[in-house]
Amino acid sequence: MKKYISGATIDRLPIYLRTLQLAEEEGKMIISSEELGRRLDITPEQIRKDLTSFGQFGRKGIGYFVAELKNHIGKILGLDNHWRLAIIGVGHLGAALANYENFTSLGFEISALFDIDERVTGYEINGVKIYDLRKLDSVVKRKNIDIGIITVPAVDAQEVADMLIQAGVKGIWNFAPVKLNVPRNIKLVNEDLTVGLNALSYHLTQESN
Amino acid sequence: MKKYISGATIDRLPIYLRTLQLAEEEGKMIISSEELGRRLDITPEQIRKDLTSFGQFGRKGIGYFVAELKNHIGKILGLDNHWRLAIIGVGHLGAALANYENFTSLGFEISALFDIDERVTGYEINGVKIYDLRKLDSVVKRKNIDIGIITVPAVDAQEVADMLIQAGVKGIWNFAPVKLNVPRNIKLVNEDLTVGLNALSYHLTQESN
Repeated sequence: MKKYISGATIDRLPIYLRTLQLAEEEGKMIISSEELGRRLDITPEQIRKDLTSFGQFGRKGIGYFVAELKNHIGKILGLDNHWRLAIIGVGHLGAALANYENFTSLGFEISALFDIDERVTGYEINGVKIYDLRKLDSVVKRKNIDIGIITVPAVDAQEVADMLIQAGVKGIWNFAPVKLNVPRNIKLVNEDLTVGLNALSYHLTQESN
Repeated sequence: MKKYISGATIDRLPIYLRTLQLAEEEGKMIISSEELGRRLDITPEQIRKDLTSFGQFGRKGIGYFVAELKNHIGKILGLDNHWRLAIIGVGHLGAALANYENFTSLGFEISALFDIDERVTGYEINGVKIYDLRKLDSVVKRKNIDIGIITVPAVDAQEVADMLIQAGVKGIWNFAPVKLNVPRNIKLVNEDLTVGLNALSYHLTQESN
């Protein structure tokens, strides 16, 4: 049975998941919607509404069982699928992502890195090889890569996206500050590093008024 | 007159802002809640509700005036405040952020970089000097830095946060995957790079069911 979950709720699921993981690491077994709300700056009502939309994981007056809720959200998010990733563009940002430990711990596997710069191709980061960009098609097909992470300059991003789609990826995570054109069957998530900073700016502005 | 805006709405404002900026770059002058919703995977009803909460920027049957709405959201977010930032930890992620053009275009100024590694201190990125971490207190005070961006390893993050707070920053943007303890008067935003990837995983999972 597939249930409809709204886009805005889906956007919050990874944030719930991360908070539940932190709570688990702190040794918490049960967490209330009030505490989740305090940690996330979301109203407890909104949290209860979100979590009710895919099943009953809380007990009135007790709270949510951290491990149970975390595993269920992980399942909804498809984290048991072990997606294979490729990072295209091994500049500072690409290298930072290639070194980011949390991807592996969530079941994402970085399978290949690509760059056009001959000074870096052939090398490895964390045991993952940096291929020449011209080999993208064959490597993506051979390694069954599901998701391409674009960390090239904005001017090159659309060309890289086209290459990835041609090679058969199902999804693209785009860090380049540009709107990409992709077919409807390709899932695209745009990452914008200014979002967190803007939120901080908002809170500081309210404070100083 | 200050109006109450819910935490969840505030979290969406930077995303609206980014989408309006992209629309403006594409030459759009008016955008409907339906189109905003399509671009963001949020229902048009939610968008109208969010945007109504801080004023009337849409015309029924026409849409929102892109520039006007963008400027207003920018003002709510405090982007005219020209916050001064420092980045602590000039590894790949810190260097990537120091090179990120969009911060400057939104009015954030990166005023100082810090690291403990003598191989990088004294150098500059984009004209901004990398200081020895031991000089943090004096440099933050002298340059009136408002926000500290933490891109050091998780084990060092709390110590760096304490130093920043001691030196007088008002807000912290934390990229280290660890929960920081900060006083109530310090604004803390935690960045989690897995959130976007989790959202992509969700959409791919629904697709393949």
